[in-house]
Amino acid sequence: MEHLGKHLIIEFWGCNDGINDADLMRTAMIEAVHAAHATLLDINVHTFSPHGVTGVAVLSESHLSVHSWPEYGYLAADVFTCGETTDPPAAVEVLRQYFQPSVVELQNIQRGIDPETSKRPKRRNWTQQIHEMESITAGTN
Amino acid sequence: MEHLGKHLIIEFWGCNDGINDADLMRTAMIEAVHAAHATLLDINVHTFSPHGVTGVAVLSESHLSVHSWPEYGYLAADVFTCGETTDPPAAVEVLRQYFQPSVVELQNIQRGIDPETSKRPKRRNWTQQIHEMESITAGTN
Repeated sequence: MEHLGKHLIIEFWGCNDGINDADLMRTAMIEAVHAAHATLLDINVHTFSPHGVTGVAVLSESHLSVHSWPEYGYLAADVFTCGETTDPPAAVEVLRQYFQPSVVELQNIQRGIDPETSKRPKRRNWTQQIHEMESITAGTN
Repeated sequence: MEHLGKHLIIEFWGCNDGINDADLMRTAMIEAVHAAHATLLDINVHTFSPHGVTGVAVLSESHLSVHSWPEYGYLAADVFTCGETTDPPAAVEVLRQYFQPSVVELQNIQRGIDPETSKRPKRRNWTQQIHEMESITAGTN
């Protein structure tokens, strides 16, 4: 196997006010899932006070999540799919049509690349990794 | 602001059989959320035939997801948190204790870095990006 899943990390800036509308977010997410040829199992959308929406769709092929910061016009999304028939960029395009960001940044991460067969260095030292991670994440918000 | 969220991408290989146990996965996820000082809003866990478990927890601070391929001993997880009080590496440690992977790979992605103030090149050409993404993701599973 080459890899097991595709994980798109999606950054939208300059979005319209729709990112603060939970009903619209739910509609956009369902349409995005269908566009990606994925199968929806569950969807939860929450609104926050004073603003912000979080939505997570559980898929047969993994998940789609969205988290909005309307005060910055920012939407963080990710779509994780497995299988040969899914089209995750199509989900991004649906979200883009709904929320009209002026800036889009994408990152594609291949998930499930077997470390025994890949050419990447093996990183077995969990303790070192977690210490690096803590130094990276500490106090950075 | 420096960034709005922390997104840990987690690869576990060589896991025990617990990654195929939906009840255990739910328990581990809830414990991981608490360890990370996050607040659980919803959790959905699904089992697949013949094997595999997907779980997604919606948090006040974003989400935690897990997707397992027991046939490879592989668990893909991610934890996305915002706020200064969360501790996402603690969630990873809980999952590691439950599923005992022999190999752990982590990637830390800072989410919501304002493109107007960051030193990163601005990537406004959505059409080019989506074409790059399609060429990357096409036929790679």
